[in-house]
Amino acid sequence: MNTKPKIVVIGGGTGSFVALMGLKKHPVDLTAIVSMMDSGGSSGRLRDELGVLPPGDIRQCLVALATSSRLLRNLFTYRFEEGDLKGHNFGNVFLSTLEKTTGSMEKAITEVGKILRIQGSVVPVTFQKTDLCVELINGEVIIGETHIDEVESKVERARIKRAFLKPDVLANPLSLKSIHDADIVLIGPGDLYTSIIPNLLAGGVVDALKQSKAQKVYVLNIMTKYGQTTHYKASEHIKDLEKYLGKGVLSHVFINSMRPTKKTLDWYEDFDEQPVTDDIVDSQLDFNVIRKDLLKNVLLGKTSSDNLKRSIIRHDPDKLAAAVMDLLTA
Amino acid sequence: MNTKPKIVVIGGGTGSFVALMGLKKHPVDLTAIVSMMDSGGSSGRLRDELGVLPPGDIRQCLVALATSSRLLRNLFTYRFEEGDLKGHNFGNVFLSTLEKTTGSMEKAITEVGKILRIQGSVVPVTFQKTDLCVELINGEVIIGETHIDEVESKVERARIKRAFLKPDVLANPLSLKSIHDADIVLIGPGDLYTSIIPNLLAGGVVDALKQSKAQKVYVLNIMTKYGQTTHYKASEHIKDLEKYLGKGVLSHVFINSMRPTKKTLDWYEDFDEQPVTDDIVDSQLDFNVIRKDLLKNVLLGKTSSDNLKRSIIRHDPDKLAAAVMDLLTA
Repeated sequence: MNTKPKIVVIGGGTGSFVALMGLKKHPVDLTAIVSMMDSGGSSGRLRDELGVLPPGDIRQCLVALATSSRLLRNLFTYRFEEGDLKGHNFGNVFLSTLEKTTGSMEKAITEVGKILRIQGSVVPVTFQKTDLCVELINGEVIIGETHIDEVESKVERARIKRAFLKPDVLANPLSLKSIHDADIVLIGPGDLYTSIIPNLLAGGVVDALKQSKAQKVYVLNIMTKYGQTTHYKASEHIKDLEKYLGKGVLSHVFINSMRPTKKTLDWYEDFDEQPVTDDIVDSQLDFNVIRKDLLKNVLLGKTSSDNLKRSIIRHDPDKLAAAVMDLLTA
Repeated sequence: MNTKPKIVVIGGGTGSFVALMGLKKHPVDLTAIVSMMDSGGSSGRLRDELGVLPPGDIRQCLVALATSSRLLRNLFTYRFEEGDLKGHNFGNVFLSTLEKTTGSMEKAITEVGKILRIQGSVVPVTFQKTDLCVELINGEVIIGETHIDEVESKVERARIKRAFLKPDVLANPLSLKSIHDADIVLIGPGDLYTSIIPNLLAGGVVDALKQSKAQKVYVLNIMTKYGQTTHYKASEHIKDLEKYLGKGVLSHVFINSMRPTKKTLDWYEDFDEQPVTDDIVDSQLDFNVIRKDLLKNVLLGKTSSDNLKRSIIRHDPDKLAAAVMDLLTA
């Protein structure tokens, strides 16, 4: 009988990677529910050219949960820098080829999970193909996650009015069951519109969250994200999230209380990204706000991870995991 | 203590694959010594673009020795048919990426061997980079295995005078030890100039063969190979092989005695390839000739293997293995 606390992390990308890396050091039963709407980079190319589901976020979560040798983890994060494989990530190619040869992303995840000896589960939020779209307040519609995510920092973009999927899809039943059975559901960290909300748009997820007895924790990003949450304060993040999640669903919001160094912030300023201002007035709320130092300054440098730009300010895996574990004993 | 008979197969490519597939069903200790001079197709692209050793023949032998699920074997033989991965073989990409991330083909083979749960060993004949070259009797020199292997069937090519490596390389010590310790060394089946002789050119291999107490068996190809052994009879194959191996080294030559069907032969005739004529006069020989039905007619059709053209007449894995096993009890 498994009596370990069940923790579900909803997201995809670097934010989920960080949360999982910290939590896997604790005696918990971990599930990563992963957005399947990625359309850029190596994932997007594989999706377009092989007709598979986008593997990138799945791969990041698998690597986070891996207990295999560093050698195999390095393999799965390896990015080709030459030849006609240039820009492809090996783990993505591996997952997509397994999906092609087995005919199923679910089987592909199972096989890679065995090879990487993952501790926990990685669950795609849906197995149906769909595109993330947003409508801006000026009426413009942007189709495709990569076009929403990648915006020139000098280009003005109107605020996002609403996000939707085209076509609508149903959630993977296993993701709903995981949410239902969870003790804690972590929503984030991750980019609000390209990593978190896509999960909530899969049919059934929000209802499962409402019905689940789990503590539901929104981990607010440390920095704003240009083009998605430009100049957003904490309250605006929560307001946008609750458009999809509904009010009264969140039990906790985690806010980082440690300011990054000026040097790091200067670099982000070039992209018009700033620390999220904590404008939450606690007395008005139907959730608990936990303010803690959750910050990690990651040194800039050549890494095997996807994208230098998004790598330098992150949640600290250990600090974040400790804050989550505190909820279990509170 | 391992008392199983030790059998070494020298070659690379489809011939070794067939021999290993048959022998692995018997209680023997198998080692595949593999030519590392491949320069065409997916292997050649990876070699040129990533600066790695050519993985294709290694991959075929690993798959032959795999005891893992069909699912993983299918993965390792999967060939991409779309996008910028088109033409690449997944197993090749896997080995090359592991070589890049570990810095060593030896470690890459060990890791893939674990994943495929191989029964036996796959040993590159050398870890040094080199090109196979041949000089024709008209003085022309052809550099690169793929240019030797691929010749238009309508183009006349002069006979091969000699093969050499550029630069010279030393054999992997493990390949020499395997030969030294073997009970039987199978040379072939495989294309004489592009799969077999390249192994003999690695410094140390011929001396190891001469010194080894193993029975040394040349498995003659069933068909001639246009551009390498065009219109060669059995005696000419042996004569060319012995240019490199020396006389008196072979203990046995296996010759297929079953004629392929006319329909199959008609198809080969388009490439000016015919069954090898058995012109051996037994009384003059310093080796034993074993004539047996070793034939398998493989049905033409879409396969996941490398190359349709070379797939339709093969040695039968079970018949070949049975003939080899007979040597142990003779």
